[in-house]
Amino acid sequence: MSPLPKPPSDAATDAAIEAALAAKTMPPGALGRIGDLACRLARMQGTLAPVIEAPALAVFCADHGIARQGVSAYPQDVTWQMVLNLLAGGAAAAVFARSAGLSLTVVDVGVAHDFDASARAHPAFVDAKAARGTADCTQGAAMTRAQCEAAMAAGARVAAASAGNVLALGEVGIGNTSAAALLTAHFTGASLAACVGRGTGLDDAGLARKQAVLERAFALHAPARRSGEPLDALAALGGLEIAAMAGAALEAARLGRVVVVDGFVATAALLAARAIDPAVLDACVLSHRSAEHGHAVAIESLCDGGRLPPPLLALDMRLGEGTGAALAVPLLRCAADMLREMATFASAGVAQASS
Amino acid sequence: MSPLPKPPSDAATDAAIEAALAAKTMPPGALGRIGDLACRLARMQGTLAPVIEAPALAVFCADHGIARQGVSAYPQDVTWQMVLNLLAGGAAAAVFARSAGLSLTVVDVGVAHDFDASARAHPAFVDAKAARGTADCTQGAAMTRAQCEAAMAAGARVAAASAGNVLALGEVGIGNTSAAALLTAHFTGASLAACVGRGTGLDDAGLARKQAVLERAFALHAPARRSGEPLDALAALGGLEIAAMAGAALEAARLGRVVVVDGFVATAALLAARAIDPAVLDACVLSHRSAEHGHAVAIESLCDGGRLPPPLLALDMRLGEGTGAALAVPLLRCAADMLREMATFASAGVAQASS
Repeated sequence: MSPLPKPPSDAATDAAIEAALAAKTMPPGALGRIGDLACRLARMQGTLAPVIEAPALAVFCADHGIARQGVSAYPQDVTWQMVLNLLAGGAAAAVFARSAGLSLTVVDVGVAHDFDASARAHPAFVDAKAARGTADCTQGAAMTRAQCEAAMAAGARVAAASAGNVLALGEVGIGNTSAAALLTAHFTGASLAACVGRGTGLDDAGLARKQAVLERAFALHAPARRSGEPLDALAALGGLEIAAMAGAALEAARLGRVVVVDGFVATAALLAARAIDPAVLDACVLSHRSAEHGHAVAIESLCDGGRLPPPLLALDMRLGEGTGAALAVPLLRCAADMLREMATFASAGVAQASS
Repeated sequence: MSPLPKPPSDAATDAAIEAALAAKTMPPGALGRIGDLACRLARMQGTLAPVIEAPALAVFCADHGIARQGVSAYPQDVTWQMVLNLLAGGAAAAVFARSAGLSLTVVDVGVAHDFDASARAHPAFVDAKAARGTADCTQGAAMTRAQCEAAMAAGARVAAASAGNVLALGEVGIGNTSAAALLTAHFTGASLAACVGRGTGLDDAGLARKQAVLERAFALHAPARRSGEPLDALAALGGLEIAAMAGAALEAARLGRVVVVDGFVATAALLAARAIDPAVLDACVLSHRSAEHGHAVAIESLCDGGRLPPPLLALDMRLGEGTGAALAVPLLRCAADMLREMATFASAGVAQASS
């Protein structure tokens, strides 16, 4: 993958964007984070007139070998069942995408199921299966290096194929908060305990079991984690949909698209992508603060230093699928429209502050 | 004004709504506050299939006699200039309304300006002028009782005339954070100091002057505030657009509409409306937590006891106009669409949690 281009903005562009915002008919700073978001979108797009065009939600779906260790409250079949539910328009992310004006693509990057002809013929379905689920990472690497790269390439292809200029990233995969916890601990340096949560709803005993299983996996892959090579850790810990989201984020950033990142599992992918190229952060918007334990760790790490602003929403959601990313898109649309269409004091003939 | 009808929901309805949410293809509680919001919209509309139809933003505009005490960073003429800016589509709230799919109505309920024929002919303009601004409430009552009632009636007419089932309330009025601070202190019992903020951007000296001016007004109207009659305090402290929003909220609630409440000035109106009839809270959604000092006081009071959930958004905004209310409407749309359209475990053939 070629390195990301330098962001189009420079100091002069930044000053022009700030001046454009300051000229709008409102007190300085009065739109708070929406004003900041508008400026950031302008910098991403290299224009004083940012626009949100044909935003797309890509939901990457895959299974996890670690699911057989009993780390999820739901059976593994729910992954393929949810793919069909997304295609039928009945899953939460499908409803939110429709409601918020995003197109929907459902990507099989590693579901352990053979979809029938009707699913495969659905216009929203993308067959990019890189494996039938990951291997159980308590026993060995979740993915081979080749599988990991294939999943990343699948994500990059989805990003390149999306027509609009905004790509929202979501996922489905029973067991994937386990992989996300391992990756979050690895890429942030936080303790695994700080990154492991209840996922889809484990009780206390389930959480303790998940914690013990993940400690074993984390220890097993200490060598891969010490290599310093992000793909070694990503391949060792999984999962296919996470690798795909990392690839999609890097490619969307390279193409100048805005990347809207969902919750805990999606930020694990962003942590991997950042380890590959930190400039990916300049293309990203964190949509929401998930209630999943561990998301705070990822957010703190990703936002450290101020290159990436904190999430826009905090609504105690923990569903994944891209539901938080879809919810945030209307905020991006308002922010971009504001900078592009709002009047200035001069154009509207409104008096400035008297002091 | 006739009393609000009893909310359509009862214990059996509530249980049916909770059961409808629980049947959706997601772990229990996974949509957090969006799930709660969907249930609340269902209770408001008395249905398991809530819908957001033709949401409308009404921006109530009026001037304030207290502005001549130097309590705002902007000259009073900005009020009428912003009316024209709203009508021309260039004000932030006009952009957000367009972007988020709300119709816009701009109501002159007391602007100290004669709008020309072209403004008056604009389809979004409503002439409901109850006075040419309030009187200076440091010298006497801001409104006569008749003016206050006329402004409330104007708000009620706007609510009744809006075609959809959601009414978002916003305002424009140079000086109106002063009136809102006085009303917030009065209706919550908090200290005035806790309710007075920088408004459109006072510096420290300006804030100290505003505080001193408002202390004088608050003391002057101690008799009206002691009467126990909400309209006495509202008339004494102002303003016309705040009275109009209170009337609009009460009438919209009576008609079974959802009321989306903007920031600091709008919540002051809701405090007055609650003092008139607490059931108004059952129709309301708080859109956002404003950065204006004093909004936290209003929110704490309005949400005390849990009848009204806290604001959905916290984006450091402090512009008013209904900008926060417009931003929240896509969240309401997603919530309602989710409960109405999302599949159930049974309908989608998705397996339940295994535990």
